[in-house]
Amino acid sequence: MQEIIVIRLGERIIRDYRVNTHLGLVARALGCKELIFQGSEYKELRESVEKVNEHWGQGLKVRFSESIYGEAKKLKAKGFCIIHLTMYGKQITEKVKEIRKNKKICIILGGEKVPREYYELADYNISVANQPHSEIAALAIVLHEIFEGKELATKFKKGKIKIEPCEKGKKVVSK
Amino acid sequence: MQEIIVIRLGERIIRDYRVNTHLGLVARALGCKELIFQGSEYKELRESVEKVNEHWGQGLKVRFSESIYGEAKKLKAKGFCIIHLTMYGKQITEKVKEIRKNKKICIILGGEKVPREYYELADYNISVANQPHSEIAALAIVLHEIFEGKELATKFKKGKIKIEPCEKGKKVVSK
Repeated sequence: MQEIIVIRLGERIIRDYRVNTHLGLVARALGCKELIFQGSEYKELRESVEKVNEHWGQGLKVRFSESIYGEAKKLKAKGFCIIHLTMYGKQITEKVKEIRKNKKICIILGGEKVPREYYELADYNISVANQPHSEIAALAIVLHEIFEGKELATKFKKGKIKIEPCEKGKKVVSK
Repeated sequence: MQEIIVIRLGERIIRDYRVNTHLGLVARALGCKELIFQGSEYKELRESVEKVNEHWGQGLKVRFSESIYGEAKKLKAKGFCIIHLTMYGKQITEKVKEIRKNKKICIILGGEKVPREYYELADYNISVANQPHSEIAALAIVLHEIFEGKELATKFKKGKIKIEPCEKGKKVVSK
């Protein structure tokens, strides 16, 4: 599977706390390696993901950066293919075959006012449906397309518990 | 394409306002017909979706119901296949071929404490990755799997503007 790092633009980390928590859950559950938020360290958000890792198995690393454009440039220099998710971009289904060939991919999640430089830095400006959207859902579908569904079978190392899928009800077992 | 109605359980409509707004955007952008929230009418939430419909084209209908289990039962009686999304269920990839055969599908989005009766009512209890997840992302992936990606090309009727996808930058045109 490809190594994927997600960069989340936007300085409203606290105001967007719930959306950011969802992004952490998605990036982890769907097999990303790292999620970098813009801004200074926000302990509660990092710890919410670490707590899930501790219980459910080692997955995502979360960190914060004051120089988020610098992070994206550094990843590009290291050979990461840069995907910028924007409702104005080309459909993921049209470009995913090319994108999938890259072993290292950085996905940038924008917002309403993304500076022009990100559109330029990106190897691909990619949309999911060219409609107003949820960045949480857009990230999920793009990951699902890149990994071709294989991410749903990710094995999480360590952790204390896991689910045994069942037709009705709930079954959680210790690892 | 299948007719899909989404039911959102949970009485914290205002506290979960941002998550619910995301659910509205996803259900609309990915071609659902209706989204029913549990509880009494919350005008701001309904209007936020209607505003998107007005600008970007007719899509999702939003309504609220005080008797949400009754809504699910009514849909089942009308022949809808009931899918309950839960982290404890069977993987979507394992069941999607069967699910896809149904022309009318109701997707129930739960939360932390879903009453047992929903597990029983459901034709399928379905998970996305059997890991703690975002219900926004889980809904997106399940819709994408059921529609086989065709939902990304949905044509929205009426509306005032649309996007012309481009490699770099933004292009919005009047309809």
